[in-house]
Amino acid sequence: MLFRSLHSSKIQYLRRRCFSSATAPHVLKLGDVLRKTRIFTEEDVLQYSKVSHDSNPLHMDSAAAQNVGFDGPLVHGMLVASLFPNIISSHFPAAVYASQTLNFKLPVYIGDQVVGEVQVTNLRVNKNRYLAKFKTRCFKNGEILVIEGSIGHTSKKLLIFLIRMQLK
Amino acid sequence: MLFRSLHSSKIQYLRRRCFSSATAPHVLKLGDVLRKTRIFTEEDVLQYSKVSHDSNPLHMDSAAAQNVGFDGPLVHGMLVASLFPNIISSHFPAAVYASQTLNFKLPVYIGDQVVGEVQVTNLRVNKNRYLAKFKTRCFKNGEILVIEGSIGHTSKKLLIFLIRMQLK
Repeated sequence: MLFRSLHSSKIQYLRRRCFSSATAPHVLKLGDVLRKTRIFTEEDVLQYSKVSHDSNPLHMDSAAAQNVGFDGPLVHGMLVASLFPNIISSHFPAAVYASQTLNFKLPVYIGDQVVGEVQVTNLRVNKNRYLAKFKTRCFKNGEILVIEGSIGHTSKKLLIFLIRMQLK
Repeated sequence: MLFRSLHSSKIQYLRRRCFSSATAPHVLKLGDVLRKTRIFTEEDVLQYSKVSHDSNPLHMDSAAAQNVGFDGPLVHGMLVASLFPNIISSHFPAAVYASQTLNFKLPVYIGDQVVGEVQVTNLRVNKNRYLAKFKTRCFKNGEILVIEGSIGHTSKKLLIFLIRMQLK
């Protein structure tokens, strides 16, 4: 029964259940939504610039950002997108990251309230590979979509972890 | 002539010219390759964990990583992938990041020598939108492919910047 639900390759949206980062679901089901909210600060952007060695002036210099039409310095897209693996790893610490697509729709500025959201779209077994797929979206200041895409996680270990989650 | 070369939607691989992070090309052409080499340290992983709020034990705890079949703690995939926007912004500081796809093929461990590589696959004008597309790959310890994907950059500002690069 457990394997049959994991084996299904058809996306079946069940009742949409939402979880914040503070509440981990005991059983992960198709359609489940996990969320995390964050406001990126100037210090976050500075620290990310240091660790990524990304010194693009659009992130640090108001004049440079305004010169090309932005309201102010941008939070790095990859820093905003780090919300997605962050959400997944906070619920599934042993999950292995296989793929990511990101479409950056609008800029995120320092001080914007950002909500990262991942939604389970597929849980299946394919021969010896096990796949969990999530639709990923980030919104700022309410419902303004700033990033959309997907994440895939695949491995035997992830299945084992999901089984444990199912059996809890 | 300048616009015609940018307008072409056909991918024409010209002579493959390679540039390290120390040498910026004056004219960006289809097929050009830009590279950057980096070795991620334990301190990098710690700092990235802090700024991304990603406390996945696979990145910090040898036992946790080994328990699920890895040789040791993993460098965050999104930290390794930060090489791509880093390379582009170091050559084109005003470039605006539009999309990214990432396929994580193999783990990157602390101490691995990683080479990030972006290759220009398209430079074109589509109505009022301007697109530069890059194939992206990361290799570790020689020619072992660890990440592959693509990055798209689009905006009027990017075109202006590319024109400036062309006119230099």
